[in-house]
Amino acid sequence: MKIELECFPCLFNQLNRTLKLITDDKFKIKEIIDEMGIRLKNINFDMSPPEAGAILYSLINERLKIKDPYQNIKKESIKLGIKLYPELKKQVEESEDRLLESVKIAIAGNIIDFGAQEEFDIQKELLKIKDEEFNLSDYNRFKDKIKDSNQILVIGDNAGETVFDRILLEEFKDKKIIYAVRGFPTINDATREDAIASGIDKLANIITTGSNIPGVVINKTSEEFNDYFYNSDIVISKGQGNYETLSEIDRDIFFLFKIKCSVVSNKLDLPIGESILRYKTLKIEQ
Amino acid sequence: MKIELECFPCLFNQLNRTLKLITDDKFKIKEIIDEMGIRLKNINFDMSPPEAGAILYSLINERLKIKDPYQNIKKESIKLGIKLYPELKKQVEESEDRLLESVKIAIAGNIIDFGAQEEFDIQKELLKIKDEEFNLSDYNRFKDKIKDSNQILVIGDNAGETVFDRILLEEFKDKKIIYAVRGFPTINDATREDAIASGIDKLANIITTGSNIPGVVINKTSEEFNDYFYNSDIVISKGQGNYETLSEIDRDIFFLFKIKCSVVSNKLDLPIGESILRYKTLKIEQ
Repeated sequence: MKIELECFPCLFNQLNRTLKLITDDKFKIKEIIDEMGIRLKNINFDMSPPEAGAILYSLINERLKIKDPYQNIKKESIKLGIKLYPELKKQVEESEDRLLESVKIAIAGNIIDFGAQEEFDIQKELLKIKDEEFNLSDYNRFKDKIKDSNQILVIGDNAGETVFDRILLEEFKDKKIIYAVRGFPTINDATREDAIASGIDKLANIITTGSNIPGVVINKTSEEFNDYFYNSDIVISKGQGNYETLSEIDRDIFFLFKIKCSVVSNKLDLPIGESILRYKTLKIEQ
Repeated sequence: MKIELECFPCLFNQLNRTLKLITDDKFKIKEIIDEMGIRLKNINFDMSPPEAGAILYSLINERLKIKDPYQNIKKESIKLGIKLYPELKKQVEESEDRLLESVKIAIAGNIIDFGAQEEFDIQKELLKIKDEEFNLSDYNRFKDKIKDSNQILVIGDNAGETVFDRILLEEFKDKKIIYAVRGFPTINDATREDAIASGIDKLANIITTGSNIPGVVINKTSEEFNDYFYNSDIVISKGQGNYETLSEIDRDIFFLFKIKCSVVSNKLDLPIGESILRYKTLKIEQ
């Protein structure tokens, strides 16, 4: 899916949110806002929203020489995930359908996004898991596909969410699991370091996209990534950024995410906040 | 009050909202977004948000050669106001405190803002008047001040809201009333033509600010406006744009408006959507 007009105000919101984590100097922030204004011309309607996001995060790195503004937030999110892990695990143990329960948990974990800056809010959201409404019409297909698969590629999204993904990965017994993260820090997206801190390395082979785009743009990903992407039996994509970049790609994918903005909400005709498991066939969506 | 960082994403939202009324050509819109990006450097923290808004609306006029993109919406809003007028008037007649009721109606009318593009939504909102919560702690002071005043200046805001203001003006019997509107079309703000279409000319002397700023920036207003502003016995300012530009000015003012954004909400420590009557003394707020 491609950039829409609504994405431009959103970019400036993301810029504010990120820069406020780094500095209190509004004049410094304004300089970067002005520079982002000038770079708007580099964004076009052939790009996906995460590609535009990468332009923004590259600008921040370039100007402020800070490689990973979300480092502390990511660490806190992982810490919180690990704290909640035993309770979530117990929830799976006590459920009638372990796979279904772990899918729900993995989707619920997707609320840990760059917007959620306060630990308290994250925690409050996470406790909603049991009551959460899920849009899981493609679950049976997912279950069958998992059963028939030997090699599973999971494309991760946010740090912290990674611990929730671990719960899902633990249900893929006797399968070869590949877990893909971003190549470089971008927003609060998980990198290799974050995946390891979440215990993913004990369950999966961790690879990276090779890029700092907060999504997966196939012609900008590493050969290693592409090899796993096209040759795994099933691809599970976590989060909206991965959906935005992969929704028109020439392979079937299961998307697990929460809808976070009006553009995706309109595209899918589902409300913001909806938790979904959505299957995309080989056919390219228009 | 001055521009804050949160105002920059909001500017791009306003740009989208206005341009979508004029054209379906997203490439044309993107060109103007890019140009607005370049002009961000002309906006500084000494400006009020409406001054930045004027930069945006001037850009639209310049590029699209459309003087008044909100013309139809304004006409529809006035039409709706006039349709509701008899019912609102009846509400005043049946109330225990006519002035209080008409103040509530005038504030409720402030929901007709550029964000409300669908007539149905406006109508739904307007019907809430009776249930609306109002923050009117300065009402008694307002009532006393009106009683002691001979000349009243009301600074209008949006077209359509003007009909609701008329209900209030009709309670200022035997007073000399001045009603100020914008000098040129800007967003859906009322101009002289809109005030006349709302029947204001039968009650008040209509003047203009002489400017296209969707607020009142004293050093950019006409001599005529300034004369009435400083020499009237009471100034009643409608809407958030006028509040944003007049909150630190060297005269006392009664502000009647609905809070519409997080920046003003934070400043006043009141929620978005709150309907308020707020007195500002001569003392300059910091």
